[in-house]
Amino acid sequence: MTGRGRWMYREIRQAPAVLQRLWDQGRPELEALARRWWYQPPHLVVFVARGSSDNAALYGRYLCEAHLRVPASLAAPSVVTLYRARPTLRGAWVVALSQSGRSPDVVAFLRAARAGGAFTVAVTNADDSPLAQTAHEVVALRAGGERSVAATKTYVAELYALSLFVAEVGRRKDFLAAHEELPGRVQEALHYVEPAVVDLAGRWEHVHACVVTGRGYNYATAREAALKLKEAAYVAAEALSSADFLHGPVALVGPDFPVLVVAAPGRARDHLRDVLRKLRRRRADVAVVSSDARLLNLAQVGVRAPDGVPEELTPHVYAVAAHLLSYHLGVRRGVDPDRPRGLRKVTWVL
Amino acid sequence: MTGRGRWMYREIRQAPAVLQRLWDQGRPELEALARRWWYQPPHLVVFVARGSSDNAALYGRYLCEAHLRVPASLAAPSVVTLYRARPTLRGAWVVALSQSGRSPDVVAFLRAARAGGAFTVAVTNADDSPLAQTAHEVVALRAGGERSVAATKTYVAELYALSLFVAEVGRRKDFLAAHEELPGRVQEALHYVEPAVVDLAGRWEHVHACVVTGRGYNYATAREAALKLKEAAYVAAEALSSADFLHGPVALVGPDFPVLVVAAPGRARDHLRDVLRKLRRRRADVAVVSSDARLLNLAQVGVRAPDGVPEELTPHVYAVAAHLLSYHLGVRRGVDPDRPRGLRKVTWVL
Repeated sequence: MTGRGRWMYREIRQAPAVLQRLWDQGRPELEALARRWWYQPPHLVVFVARGSSDNAALYGRYLCEAHLRVPASLAAPSVVTLYRARPTLRGAWVVALSQSGRSPDVVAFLRAARAGGAFTVAVTNADDSPLAQTAHEVVALRAGGERSVAATKTYVAELYALSLFVAEVGRRKDFLAAHEELPGRVQEALHYVEPAVVDLAGRWEHVHACVVTGRGYNYATAREAALKLKEAAYVAAEALSSADFLHGPVALVGPDFPVLVVAAPGRARDHLRDVLRKLRRRRADVAVVSSDARLLNLAQVGVRAPDGVPEELTPHVYAVAAHLLSYHLGVRRGVDPDRPRGLRKVTWVL
Repeated sequence: MTGRGRWMYREIRQAPAVLQRLWDQGRPELEALARRWWYQPPHLVVFVARGSSDNAALYGRYLCEAHLRVPASLAAPSVVTLYRARPTLRGAWVVALSQSGRSPDVVAFLRAARAGGAFTVAVTNADDSPLAQTAHEVVALRAGGERSVAATKTYVAELYALSLFVAEVGRRKDFLAAHEELPGRVQEALHYVEPAVVDLAGRWEHVHACVVTGRGYNYATAREAALKLKEAAYVAAEALSSADFLHGPVALVGPDFPVLVVAAPGRARDHLRDVLRKLRRRRADVAVVSSDARLLNLAQVGVRAPDGVPEELTPHVYAVAAHLLSYHLGVRRGVDPDRPRGLRKVTWVL
């Protein structure tokens, strides 16, 4: 396969193998980190990241608070880089996520956090990077080289590293077992989701703007989809948690306004059904990614995801649909998703 | 004045009087709260809010971390309302912001936080509301009745209550004195900003989507502008911190794509100049709100803000431009900003 976005497409399809490798080789690192957590549990976890890694961080934040009952936050690096503040972080963990390990503001924040007393962890695909050298401990993503500017397999690898760590800390056997099955479920998703996604890309080829929404764990998926739609398909896609969406921005939605709903069944199911009904009443052009037939039926376009994945782990599987949609829509719209205009693999913002 | 958005317009113009009243009557409450902070400083501040109050919370987060060196986070209420987790928050302050004090998920989160050991504060315009009854302490906004669904004067009042509290905690005389001058500066902004904003509303009358960007303290202003543009003018406006914007979504920007840059001079000045130059190279349709002549000159449309306000307090003044723009653009586009379709003053999401 040659032409536009061939690296992005290839790397999306490598996700199952990457997760398998993390399962096979990454667990000792995560177990050691979990022992450190038990020894001295933090009162706060701060995630620091940019771009798609920041979406993975958002997922980590929900996991931390819902599974481990520890408050978590996403850092505002400019507090350190711009305003030169030195945060007081004794007793906190600071977890930096960066595929390249070279985003200067993420490195600067981690360095300040370490100086401020935090225990620091780098989750990265480059275990010899400045970020890795700054942190107390490194979680290597083992995803292999990534050539597309739009990060895909490393995003799913970050999700997997975060949830596997939480499974190790919680010592929950069922949750660990679900991780063993995930590479296969992601493979299924790759296979089954693509035809519907190709249709949707055709339907939305000339769209200027859209909203992507989801709730809880899959708010991260909505953000990831919106980011990739902007970067790889030049669609002004905004992600809103479906709670925030109903709180105001839904006013924006009139007939034919495109909305993508990431609707993994689970605790948010009733709320999502409500959202879909409200959108239907406004005659919006709604596409939904879900494994739930009744939610799928409430939309104009349904993208059916594999069934039977625990809600907390659906983001790994649903991310594949988000990535494939951005790729196919980008190519249709004449974009090269491997090389969006004006972007490089590492962004130098301080 | 009658017709569409008359309440929104009237309430935008009440902001200086509201701030003056907070200065005259609200200080004892904030001083008492500051004493409580000194007595036992928290190791974490969690803000919980929805809608425009969440934008004020974002401002509070930057203030907390940059001025008080205490880590701060914006709560994800669904961790409590959806996933039924009970966060461990001993030693933390949890600050809820809600104009009406009746958003059920904000109330539920504050109640769980109090049960989890946090010291809880409600910042609200309704001091007999369920939120006020749930919190240990209440900061009353004293903004008078707000009839427009789009909250404006209460947003500025929330900013003012937060920064005045930080000034009291920090015991910084210059920062306190700047607060005394703010009602006058906001009045100036109302006067001087409006003609340019009316022109911009004409220029962008037929726009579908835009990006609003800013950095540091004024990332909150960018978010507030984008929210109001969606709610009151039905423009698909997305707010991005200018660091995140350059990190990827800037790919979206081609010739004539509308971008609003909130560019208060200060620590972010060089970075903002860089952003404006990048946007100019892409031939975007750029409007900038700033008091800095050189930043104003880099844009197609300049909205000149009053000069000489400390950077930390510019969000109060720049919010006025955001509110006036949404109002004028909404009216031009045939929207009634007082009553956006499908919205009510209190949103019932749990």
